[in-house]
Amino acid sequence: MDTRKDTAPTGLRDRTRRAVRQEISAAAMDLFLREGFENTTVDQVVEAAGISRRSFFRYFATKEDVVLGDLLERGRRVAAELARRPVEETPWEAVRAALLALRQGEDASSDATALALGRMLQSSPTLRARHLEKQLAWRELLVPELAARLRATGVSDPAAQRRATAIIATAVVCLDTASEAWLALDGAASLEDLWDEAVAAVRD
Amino acid sequence: MDTRKDTAPTGLRDRTRRAVRQEISAAAMDLFLREGFENTTVDQVVEAAGISRRSFFRYFATKEDVVLGDLLERGRRVAAELARRPVEETPWEAVRAALLALRQGEDASSDATALALGRMLQSSPTLRARHLEKQLAWRELLVPELAARLRATGVSDPAAQRRATAIIATAVVCLDTASEAWLALDGAASLEDLWDEAVAAVRD
Repeated sequence: MDTRKDTAPTGLRDRTRRAVRQEISAAAMDLFLREGFENTTVDQVVEAAGISRRSFFRYFATKEDVVLGDLLERGRRVAAELARRPVEETPWEAVRAALLALRQGEDASSDATALALGRMLQSSPTLRARHLEKQLAWRELLVPELAARLRATGVSDPAAQRRATAIIATAVVCLDTASEAWLALDGAASLEDLWDEAVAAVRD
Repeated sequence: MDTRKDTAPTGLRDRTRRAVRQEISAAAMDLFLREGFENTTVDQVVEAAGISRRSFFRYFATKEDVVLGDLLERGRRVAAELARRPVEETPWEAVRAALLALRQGEDASSDATALALGRMLQSSPTLRARHLEKQLAWRELLVPELAARLRATGVSDPAAQRRATAIIATAVVCLDTASEAWLALDGAASLEDLWDEAVAAVRD
């Protein structure tokens, strides 16, 4: 996957490529969530997206890549938001606000979609493995942003790097713990509250 | 692997089995650390341990299993120590003391051995994957112990379970972060100090 083009589309060709990729991804995710990941074939995805198999494979090497790309796109949004947070915020305030930004602009059906996505990730062994990859990718996206914040407040490297790694790894692990609890509760508690509870348990 | 017999050897047969297993494991780990994991064959292990190939495979399905078994054995020691910690200790005090117990009774050469083990785990892709499995196994060993402690102080389930999961997952992630930094520094800082630094970064 060409992450450079994804994050910084410059010319018309890049913008077109990005738009097509997002359209295929949206059609595929919609099918995965409705029909189940394992039950959906690439042929069904290309039919729903109105493209050829050859076009699909120009954008995605595998069906799993669609889901991983979607998760990476979310990680990039968290990283961009983290970079925008005011310097006065503590590391945890900034990380919390950046994670919450993921849920902004989501409509009333978003909880149902998120629950379906969480169950889908649990259901497939290949997706579970990809999910671990995603967690490492989120770390790589978020640690440099947080390390930069720490350096701006006077912590020098390598301590800034190590502290940022510990905080981000913990934030992601707490998101995972909260998501598992949230799925087990069938969404009966709020995911934000469960994340806050996990972080409070660690920090109290 | 038969964990029941490993944790609770009862009869003579169990004790013998456990002793043989530990002898093979010690001979294999010694070879892995000296010659490198990938460079060492099962034939070399059985020769060093003075047993037949058939005996080796009665105890271990693969070469990787020797290393995983060794890591699991360490996780069981941490869990046993966590169960023994006084109830007055806070969760973090108890977890820290339980992890430190791993280093008790180790001699002066233990840092060099631990560095070699860490590098070995990083060097092999199959071992890296097994290492992730180990982290999940450590969580499964430690979470019930910590949840029991939390229940003893008046926190009821499922909150006790969720809080224990968040704390243990964070402690293991901090151990990982600290180990990576420690390997990068060639052991120039103490692993304990790096773990304390990671936990302080998370909790401050």
